[in-house]
Amino acid sequence: MAELLQSINLGGISFIAIGQNILKIILVIIAVKLSIKLFGTFSDRFYQKQAESRFVDDTKKINTMSALTKSIITYTIYFIGATMIITIMGIPVSSILATAGIGGLAIGFGAQNLVRDVITGFFILFEDQYAVGDYISLDKHSGIVEDIGIRITKIRGFNGDLHIVPNGNVSNVTNHSRGDMRIMFDVRIPLEEDIDKATKVIERFFEEYRENEPQLTNGPRVLGVADIADSWVVLRIWAKSKNMEQWRIEREIKKGIKDALDKEGIETPYPRRVILNK
Amino acid sequence: MAELLQSINLGGISFIAIGQNILKIILVIIAVKLSIKLFGTFSDRFYQKQAESRFVDDTKKINTMSALTKSIITYTIYFIGATMIITIMGIPVSSILATAGIGGLAIGFGAQNLVRDVITGFFILFEDQYAVGDYISLDKHSGIVEDIGIRITKIRGFNGDLHIVPNGNVSNVTNHSRGDMRIMFDVRIPLEEDIDKATKVIERFFEEYRENEPQLTNGPRVLGVADIADSWVVLRIWAKSKNMEQWRIEREIKKGIKDALDKEGIETPYPRRVILNK
Amino acid sequence: MAELLQSINLGGISFIAIGQNILKIILVIIAVKLSIKLFGTFSDRFYQKQAESRFVDDTKKINTMSALTKSIITYTIYFIGATMIITIMGIPVSSILATAGIGGLAIGFGAQNLVRDVITGFFILFEDQYAVGDYISLDKHSGIVEDIGIRITKIRGFNGDLHIVPNGNVSNVTNHSRGDMRIMFDVRIPLEEDIDKATKVIERFFEEYRENEPQLTNGPRVLGVADIADSWVVLRIWAKSKNMEQWRIEREIKKGIKDALDKEGIETPYPRRVILNK
Amino acid sequence: MAELLQSINLGGISFIAIGQNILKIILVIIAVKLSIKLFGTFSDRFYQKQAESRFVDDTKKINTMSALTKSIITYTIYFIGATMIITIMGIPVSSILATAGIGGLAIGFGAQNLVRDVITGFFILFEDQYAVGDYISLDKHSGIVEDIGIRITKIRGFNGDLHIVPNGNVSNVTNHSRGDMRIMFDVRIPLEEDIDKATKVIERFFEEYRENEPQLTNGPRVLGVADIADSWVVLRIWAKSKNMEQWRIEREIKKGIKDALDKEGIETPYPRRVILNK
Amino acid sequence: MAELLQSINLGGISFIAIGQNILKIILVIIAVKLSIKLFGTFSDRFYQKQAESRFVDDTKKINTMSALTKSIITYTIYFIGATMIITIMGIPVSSILATAGIGGLAIGFGAQNLVRDVITGFFILFEDQYAVGDYISLDKHSGIVEDIGIRITKIRGFNGDLHIVPNGNVSNVTNHSRGDMRIMFDVRIPLEEDIDKATKVIERFFEEYRENEPQLTNGPRVLGVADIADSWVVLRIWAKSKNMEQWRIEREIKKGIKDALDKEGIETPYPRRVILNK
Amino acid sequence: MAELLQSINLGGISFIAIGQNILKIILVIIAVKLSIKLFGTFSDRFYQKQAESRFVDDTKKINTMSALTKSIITYTIYFIGATMIITIMGIPVSSILATAGIGGLAIGFGAQNLVRDVITGFFILFEDQYAVGDYISLDKHSGIVEDIGIRITKIRGFNGDLHIVPNGNVSNVTNHSRGDMRIMFDVRIPLEEDIDKATKVIERFFEEYRENEPQLTNGPRVLGVADIADSWVVLRIWAKSKNMEQWRIEREIKKGIKDALDKEGIETPYPRRVILNK
Amino acid sequence: MAELLQSINLGGISFIAIGQNILKIILVIIAVKLSIKLFGTFSDRFYQKQAESRFVDDTKKINTMSALTKSIITYTIYFIGATMIITIMGIPVSSILATAGIGGLAIGFGAQNLVRDVITGFFILFEDQYAVGDYISLDKHSGIVEDIGIRITKIRGFNGDLHIVPNGNVSNVTNHSRGDMRIMFDVRIPLEEDIDKATKVIERFFEEYRENEPQLTNGPRVLGVADIADSWVVLRIWAKSKNMEQWRIEREIKKGIKDALDKEGIETPYPRRVILNK
Repeated sequence: MAELLQSINLGGISFIAIGQNILKIILVIIAVKLSIKLFGTFSDRFYQKQAESRFVDDTKKINTMSALTKSIITYTIYFIGATMIITIMGIPVSSILATAGIGGLAIGFGAQNLVRDVITGFFILFEDQYAVGDYISLDKHSGIVEDIGIRITKIRGFNGDLHIVPNGNVSNVTNHSRGDMRIMFDVRIPLEEDIDKATKVIERFFEEYRENEPQLTNGPRVLGVADIADSWVVLRIWAKSKNMEQWRIEREIKKGIKDALDKEGIETPYPRRVILNK
Repeated sequence: MAELLQSINLGGISFIAIGQNILKIILVIIAVKLSIKLFGTFSDRFYQKQAESRFVDDTKKINTMSALTKSIITYTIYFIGATMIITIMGIPVSSILATAGIGGLAIGFGAQNLVRDVITGFFILFEDQYAVGDYISLDKHSGIVEDIGIRITKIRGFNGDLHIVPNGNVSNVTNHSRGDMRIMFDVRIPLEEDIDKATKVIERFFEEYRENEPQLTNGPRVLGVADIADSWVVLRIWAKSKNMEQWRIEREIKKGIKDALDKEGIETPYPRRVILNK
Repeated sequence: MAELLQSINLGGISFIAIGQNILKIILVIIAVKLSIKLFGTFSDRFYQKQAESRFVDDTKKINTMSALTKSIITYTIYFIGATMIITIMGIPVSSILATAGIGGLAIGFGAQNLVRDVITGFFILFEDQYAVGDYISLDKHSGIVEDIGIRITKIRGFNGDLHIVPNGNVSNVTNHSRGDMRIMFDVRIPLEEDIDKATKVIERFFEEYRENEPQLTNGPRVLGVADIADSWVVLRIWAKSKNMEQWRIEREIKKGIKDALDKEGIETPYPRRVILNK
Repeated sequence: MAELLQSINLGGISFIAIGQNILKIILVIIAVKLSIKLFGTFSDRFYQKQAESRFVDDTKKINTMSALTKSIITYTIYFIGATMIITIMGIPVSSILATAGIGGLAIGFGAQNLVRDVITGFFILFEDQYAVGDYISLDKHSGIVEDIGIRITKIRGFNGDLHIVPNGNVSNVTNHSRGDMRIMFDVRIPLEEDIDKATKVIERFFEEYRENEPQLTNGPRVLGVADIADSWVVLRIWAKSKNMEQWRIEREIKKGIKDALDKEGIETPYPRRVILNK
Repeated sequence: MAELLQSINLGGISFIAIGQNILKIILVIIAVKLSIKLFGTFSDRFYQKQAESRFVDDTKKINTMSALTKSIITYTIYFIGATMIITIMGIPVSSILATAGIGGLAIGFGAQNLVRDVITGFFILFEDQYAVGDYISLDKHSGIVEDIGIRITKIRGFNGDLHIVPNGNVSNVTNHSRGDMRIMFDVRIPLEEDIDKATKVIERFFEEYRENEPQLTNGPRVLGVADIADSWVVLRIWAKSKNMEQWRIEREIKKGIKDALDKEGIETPYPRRVILNK
Repeated sequence: MAELLQSINLGGISFIAIGQNILKIILVIIAVKLSIKLFGTFSDRFYQKQAESRFVDDTKKINTMSALTKSIITYTIYFIGATMIITIMGIPVSSILATAGIGGLAIGFGAQNLVRDVITGFFILFEDQYAVGDYISLDKHSGIVEDIGIRITKIRGFNGDLHIVPNGNVSNVTNHSRGDMRIMFDVRIPLEEDIDKATKVIERFFEEYRENEPQLTNGPRVLGVADIADSWVVLRIWAKSKNMEQWRIEREIKKGIKDALDKEGIETPYPRRVILNK
Repeated sequence: MAELLQSINLGGISFIAIGQNILKIILVIIAVKLSIKLFGTFSDRFYQKQAESRFVDDTKKINTMSALTKSIITYTIYFIGATMIITIMGIPVSSILATAGIGGLAIGFGAQNLVRDVITGFFILFEDQYAVGDYISLDKHSGIVEDIGIRITKIRGFNGDLHIVPNGNVSNVTNHSRGDMRIMFDVRIPLEEDIDKATKVIERFFEEYRENEPQLTNGPRVLGVADIADSWVVLRIWAKSKNMEQWRIEREIKKGIKDALDKEGIETPYPRRVILNK
């Protein structure tokens, strides 16, 4: 009888082995259930902590991310459990996986953009690289952030365009809404004019302007002579203002300087050329 | 007899084993049938839900995608089932797969574009990045979307060209049809002219125009002095209009400003140059 | 004797095993024959259906593609069958495949262009992206399509060049032969001239022209003032014509506008410059 | 004795097994010899057929390619045979291959350029993309093809440079020697001049020229007004000539037009500018 | 009984084997605990040494990096231990890993950016390529370093923008804060003027300036004639200053040279042109 | 006793097996020795044949390459032999290789540049793409080749720079030293001048020049009218000269044409402009 | 008893097997110790030889590289030994490696930059592509080499910037410090002036200059007429000087030519234009 047992045994399935396999399958099912619970509560706690500390105003986003994370975990564990049970039942799972391997290569390469989008999306959110309402510039587009999703960011250009950028394309971010902005431009003074006088005229206007403009945080100041061009001297103007006010203030300073110089009779120089007639 | 059985057994095929194998094959066939059904109804429900919620006007598209999804699922399951049965029958499937592996590498690399096209196509549809009739810009082409397929998007350029773009090449989308559009251009004023007077003349025209143009949503407004160029002062004009009306309104405003300035005797400045004769 | 059988058996080859192997080989040969037939008829039916529905004028192309598909299928199945038989005969096929694996890597990488060409070629044909005789633009070349092959497309440039483009390089296609073409250009009017009068003169010519030109499908129309440049006002002209007639009509409209403006004494403006002598 | 046999047998080498192995080795050697012969004659016939049909003037090239193909086949089969014999002899070939695998990765990546060169080379020859003596343009270089090798193409630039281009870098080919070439250039006419008169003068010259120039295949013709520039009207000239004659004919037509216009007193316009003195 | 034992044994699990497996699991757990301790203290010592030697002012950074390193080590070892225990328990871990392999490919490709960011981040810190407060230029952005993280670097542009650059994008670093900076610009002298005299005038001003400017570390000096342009001679000026003072000093030198040349009557040349009237 | 033997045997090492293994190891050592000899003499013969046929002046290079090839062969065979012996001794070599596999991936990717350099280097030498002393242009650099190594090529730029280019970066080679060089430039003739007369004057100078210049291989010739520009007629000059003499001859022809035209009173035209004063 | 032994034996661990395994482990440990010693002395000798022959002044660098090489060797051998011992002990090392494989893929891709940096760094040092103090140009940066590390090269730009370039980014090196440097620039002569006279004047100055300047190694020489531009004749000047002296000498020659031409009354030509007034 032992020999019979052995012969069956060698065929791969014996009564004992069957019992063992059923035991194994039950074990796997329990493990699946447990690990889904475990990872679920782990994920919940993680996002709760995140919600408490940093993202005070983004509870909606936290919830979305939490749900997404949970469903990814659940489906992954189910899939692993299923392949384990199939293997234990003696059905050659390797052939399934080999098949999937060929297609998986194609999908793996094709899907890497998707994975990169999601990974970068997580980092944008956790590192708080930009928030809805910020004025940012990415590689090709710039504008006000309208929506940050797990896969794409929507940016509203100043001209009304809606730019839809996959997060994986977000590499170098320039955030224009995180601090005071510089105002810097050049004023042209005729070569014959006294530079010091022109500087004084401009500085006098600056003193007035500074008192009436609370959005200014530094300057304006005449930095000095930036260049001696062929038809004029170039004076460089510098200031700092509250965020998003820089354009208005720059326009106002430009008009003010023009008016101040006009009053003192310092005219804006035209391009000059010496003509030698033959 | 047990020894004989064993000897046969060691050769890999015994009566018991044969029985087991037939059982396994039947199991596989049942599994194949069941999983096709299962995944089919799963896919149906998914698309039905999609059709109910978001894509009210795209039932044709939903049907196409549903059919495509089903046939992909069916063929994949058939293929897996076939390789499993061959393995159970003891024919070395590994050599087939190894062969396929070599070619599969080439195909996998070659086909990744196809996979990427389809994946991106799904995201374009589900994230509603653009719809038929939208005016969009992709990396190289822009125009009105004529057709969104699972692999390619067809865009009709304003000059009549038909651009056929694989979805995988669609990375950063700029949608010009999702909101009001900005109108912004510059008006040149002679350096001698009074800036405030010119601004008033333009603003007076703007008040009239605003009343007669319902497509305007904001402005027009003179933002201020954008630049003091060498032959003129640059005033920046800003407005917002309903979508696709921006070009017509911009042309009308330009003509209106020219007429208004002409009436007040403020001429458009020519480029100037100072000549020093020797 | 059982023990002797066993000892031989353990050496890997027994009389029983030999019988089994011969049986397996016969099975493989039958499977090879059957699958070639099966895939052949499958391919035939597929192309027949294609020929019936869409490609009414491309029967030659269908035949070529059908033959190509069949020979690919036949050689692949022969190769798989051969490796299976060798494996069954106990000759270590894995070493062959391992060797091929090393070279296969190099070839796989090297050949991916070829695979990509063929895959893209199929999509160009099935999606009817362009046909022989169409005027198209690819990334670097444009012209009339002379031949669409399974691997390359031949385009005849307007200057007589023959561009040979691998299909894998065909990414974004611009087809200029699928609809009416726009005509759009600018007319310069002197700054002193009355814009409304000039517009009327041009529109009067357009009315005449429209009656005599059946190839016009829309317009021509004066859209309005596109720009106030420093020496002239820019009027934008717009029209639509039948395909491939746009160049001739644009030339005719240009000449007509010039003649009409000349008759009314509205001259083409030269660039102007103000000179201040010192 | 059976037990002794078995014990030896289990050690992996028995007298029977040795006999079997020697038999296998002989089988492998025969297979190697046969397959070299087989593939050799196969390759011969293939090239013979090629030589008969298409490449009437390239027998030298056919011979080179035939020899190359044969030696690749021979060395590959020897290598496979050797690894098979080593495996049969019980020496662990897998370790050799694993070693080769590591290096093979580096070589595979490094050698992919070589493989790509050869594959593309074959396609250039079989698809007859260009022949020795053709005037072609590749991505970066253009000139007369001097030599097409299996790995590189040599192009003689018109300025005497010898460009050596690996075939793998040959992607988009522009062949300038496959048909008549277009001649197209612009003639500038003063704004005051009568366009119709100038056109007639030029057309009169064209009629004369056409009679004396057998290399002309179409035109020359005045297409019409291409542009109204700020100092002149632009007339577009169009013609077609035999290949490689386009440059000479273009130069002759240019000189002829100049002479014809000069005779009629229609001068070439200089750039014009209006000066407003202040 | 021995035969029974054997039969069970062959089924893969025997009482002895079970005992052995439990022993193995205990061994693994001990190994896990030990290796976490070991690697932890190793990491601690490493960072302590780092803190002592180079990064005197960056203890906060050291702590962060130390904590990060430890948690990476801990989770990696736990994961390895878990898979080992599962394998010993006889549950087929290979199927889990195969599954992970397919997804792992996608993730591996997707995550390589993340890995590259962290690796490059470590090198930036250890090689001290730049520190907080340095003025640096990367490929696309330049400004003052505000924060160096393990994954990203934050740079504050001079115009107020906050550039967020993943460390993996940091390839060629240009650090502008590691030494004295050069000042180099050109002065234009009229062609008729004596070059030696102009040089002397400038050098005389330089001597004065040098005495009053402690931030100058070398020069300023007139290097000589850099170019004979068509309307002037170009003199090249050269100096070296303390870091970040270069812009102020350059502006002061420019103004000083202008004043010195004006005093000597050497005027800045305008562009010249010879006019031949016909 | 047979059973004891068998029991030991099943443990993997039996006296018989030990003997067999020692035999195998000796076999491996002999094979290693033999294959080094074999490949060595094979390599020697190959290079000897190369030295005899093509590279008459490069015996030094042949020796270097021969030595390099030999040492690569020797180390590779030693490495393979060592891993084989370790495998036979029963030490698990697979774990070593698996370890190496992980690192090997990193190294394989990192080292592919090195492999590509060497492969391309071999092709440069065997295909004789350029030799020391040739004037060549690569993608970014051009100059005289100073040294061709197996990994790098050194090029001396005409301005004295030494360019060190890895052979793998050598893709498209332009060799300027393999044939006669073309001289082609344009001569400007005033619009009023008689083109035929100017051509005759230039051709007369060419006849003289041709007699005194043995380095000329073809031309010089006036090709004809290349362009009717707005201020002059453009005549195109064409010639061919011995290699490296093209620059000198071009300069001499230019001066000769200027002198010849001056003598006949045909002046070089200045740019012209029509001024309309208002 | 033999059967009992066998049963245990089949369970994988027998007393004999245990003894064998302990023996194997001891063998591995000895092998590890020996190979560290061996590779260490091998590395020492290699660097000693290097230090003796080529790098006379770089003993510090040799020591660093030697130490680095040794520690890489030591850790690699320890790691291999550890995995071998674990395998022998029967703990499934494959699962560890499989785990590492997934992460290894990510790390392998991420780390390839690091490996490439180190490999390229070795070649830069051994091929002596540049040394500390050389003036070199890489792809994006140029300056004086300050430090060559195993991973990065530090280059000090002439303007004071410190460029930190990973060695892997060093592809084409241009070394400006390996030979005499060319000086080449153009001198403009009025069209009316006698070219031969101007050449003689310049050559006379060259003779004087040559005698007083020992840093000149060749020339200066007037090469001849480089171009007949529309307002002047262009003479090309050529010279060679000692390294790093080229800029000073070029400036001095330029000034000298200007002075010499001024003395002879040959003035620098201004741009000319013919004006036709209407």
